[in-house]
Amino acid sequence: MITLTTDFGLNDPYIAQMKGAIYTLNPNAKIVDITHGVDKFNIYMGAFMLASVAPYFPAGTVHVAIVDPGVGTERRAIVVQTQQAFFVGPDNGLLMLAAQQQGIKHVYELSNSKFRLPKVSSTFHGRDIFAPAAAHIDKGISVAEFGSEITHPLTPKFASIRNINGTITGQILYVDSFGNTITNIPSGSIQSQTVKVGLSQGMLTLPLRETYAQTNPKEAVALVGSHGFLELALNQDSFAKKYLISIGDSVSVTFV
Amino acid sequence: MITLTTDFGLNDPYIAQMKGAIYTLNPNAKIVDITHGVDKFNIYMGAFMLASVAPYFPAGTVHVAIVDPGVGTERRAIVVQTQQAFFVGPDNGLLMLAAQQQGIKHVYELSNSKFRLPKVSSTFHGRDIFAPAAAHIDKGISVAEFGSEITHPLTPKFASIRNINGTITGQILYVDSFGNTITNIPSGSIQSQTVKVGLSQGMLTLPLRETYAQTNPKEAVALVGSHGFLELALNQDSFAKKYLISIGDSVSVTFV
Amino acid sequence: MITLTTDFGLNDPYIAQMKGAIYTLNPNAKIVDITHGVDKFNIYMGAFMLASVAPYFPAGTVHVAIVDPGVGTERRAIVVQTQQAFFVGPDNGLLMLAAQQQGIKHVYELSNSKFRLPKVSSTFHGRDIFAPAAAHIDKGISVAEFGSEITHPLTPKFASIRNINGTITGQILYVDSFGNTITNIPSGSIQSQTVKVGLSQGMLTLPLRETYAQTNPKEAVALVGSHGFLELALNQDSFAKKYLISIGDSVSVTFV
Repeated sequence: MITLTTDFGLNDPYIAQMKGAIYTLNPNAKIVDITHGVDKFNIYMGAFMLASVAPYFPAGTVHVAIVDPGVGTERRAIVVQTQQAFFVGPDNGLLMLAAQQQGIKHVYELSNSKFRLPKVSSTFHGRDIFAPAAAHIDKGISVAEFGSEITHPLTPKFASIRNINGTITGQILYVDSFGNTITNIPSGSIQSQTVKVGLSQGMLTLPLRETYAQTNPKEAVALVGSHGFLELALNQDSFAKKYLISIGDSVSVTFV
Repeated sequence: MITLTTDFGLNDPYIAQMKGAIYTLNPNAKIVDITHGVDKFNIYMGAFMLASVAPYFPAGTVHVAIVDPGVGTERRAIVVQTQQAFFVGPDNGLLMLAAQQQGIKHVYELSNSKFRLPKVSSTFHGRDIFAPAAAHIDKGISVAEFGSEITHPLTPKFASIRNINGTITGQILYVDSFGNTITNIPSGSIQSQTVKVGLSQGMLTLPLRETYAQTNPKEAVALVGSHGFLELALNQDSFAKKYLISIGDSVSVTFV
Repeated sequence: MITLTTDFGLNDPYIAQMKGAIYTLNPNAKIVDITHGVDKFNIYMGAFMLASVAPYFPAGTVHVAIVDPGVGTERRAIVVQTQQAFFVGPDNGLLMLAAQQQGIKHVYELSNSKFRLPKVSSTFHGRDIFAPAAAHIDKGISVAEFGSEITHPLTPKFASIRNINGTITGQILYVDSFGNTITNIPSGSIQSQTVKVGLSQGMLTLPLRETYAQTNPKEAVALVGSHGFLELALNQDSFAKKYLISIGDSVSVTFV
């Protein structure tokens, strides 16, 4: 099974060119789209998306992810083999949040031209390098055959939380299409049934509930979302729109 | 075969988490997206979408549909077995328009924890309850094993038409992305080659044609659309935009 | 393998109805979406999309494409058999750019009612004629069985370039979701490392680079894109937005 996560959108021919390249090499491939709606060039959002979804896929899945502002430059193309799966994409940090969760075994450069399309463009490695690599890995080619082992893949510092005198400071990881606002504060940090939340728009005191509908329509709640993090939401409305939240905003939480 | 109909959109990780959960339980599953573009929380639009598409799918298909403002509350999770297929989703009416068309045989609650993910969140039953249920049904598990039989699933009154002195009053069921405006007036009610249509914007007299292009570009026609209902359209333009139509608007029709 | 290219968008039930019709006739079909984001009624954009993607698919693929303002009129439904694949859709030029690239062998009308759905609507041949045709071709039915051979399918003049005294005049073929602007000037015409580009907004002198990131962020470059044509781009920003480019705009290029 091969999954695809990109910032390509759904209107351009690029995703289908990648799929065609995979099926030509491996007609029995099973391809699943994770999302192609990552904000353009936003490596952090792509990393979050991949890390959210990869744990649910079967062992041996080949995850291809492409958010690649440095395509065609000296940034490397890599495959990361973990305890559970394979991650194929650019060496710009995109793969590492998901890969680290699963335990990294090896990282190899994708340099063997035998596993690329015959003609490699400078602007679309998704089609010419990453898709063919995934097709070959899915067919059982050993990842050690793709190139030399890499010991220091580029690994950004992903958002972490700080706890100072009981106030936890973290970040907005993601805002979903419902306007639900997902922080990076893990469920284990939550200590009471009422939370005081500091946002750039001011302070809110919110009840902690199990689910969205346990308050009145349009009212705000805090809850442990399906990602396992503290989430801020309105019942049947958009928290992010009401409080003007953006991904990356900082957030502080006190339990009262 | 498993189909998915939701209001999740295509940018969030939720659809892919559901697919991963299905493939992990049932690697041979064949999953088909119906649409993830139902207006958020709009159970009626979801019901229409599912009912439009389900008749075209093979016998034995498992249709999962999720528009679920009450997730995590006491609203039940159900499977409906019909003469032709299975429908999996919340007990909020979403499944019933499609299921009634096919003849309902049994409805069961999805309460057996054996057929859920090990950890069930309060906010995402799509991934934790509905997707695993579909994977198991698709593998051949009898639906009677999922929980107790339900005799009164929640069944909303879907839009119906009234005929008073030859004027039929109905509703706008759907506006498609072309701006074609689909009413709930069935083809069998149509009695002449000219229709007088009453909309909130006023009265229109329209010729009844076979297809869009049987009038001049940008001109309005009435026709029997591919759904089998009276449809109002412009040739190569948006009827809904020109006449400010919304789903749920009432519409009256006289045949002259 | 069956591919789908349409202007239907992703929110309506139409794509799923087509897929259901295909799977009902051919449960083992493998269906791949190319795109459903072609601008409504834009046959040229649909033709470009199909021609961009078809070369990457395996031999024997059945490509269904539908951008069909004349549905239900006397425009014919056709299948084009090429050296490599099959193209199914309306006889309005949509299929011909991709088909010509592969070498056309035969064109047949899709008139045999045996290979249609039992009830053919006047407004949705995608579901009632084209999808069933594709399902049957994919199962191995000879295309000669669908109807009489057609010798003159409708073939629009696709954009061509002119070279007058070293200035090449062409057209903007496509603007992708990154804002990269693809011309119809093939890589073979490029003669220097600096290009002078004439757009409706004025003249630009651009360096020719290998890839987007070989200039500073937000700066403009010319390059040979992954389509094999001269492409105009900003590094990590939208060239089309900055210079107000639309598909179909004319463009002139001088090499200096």
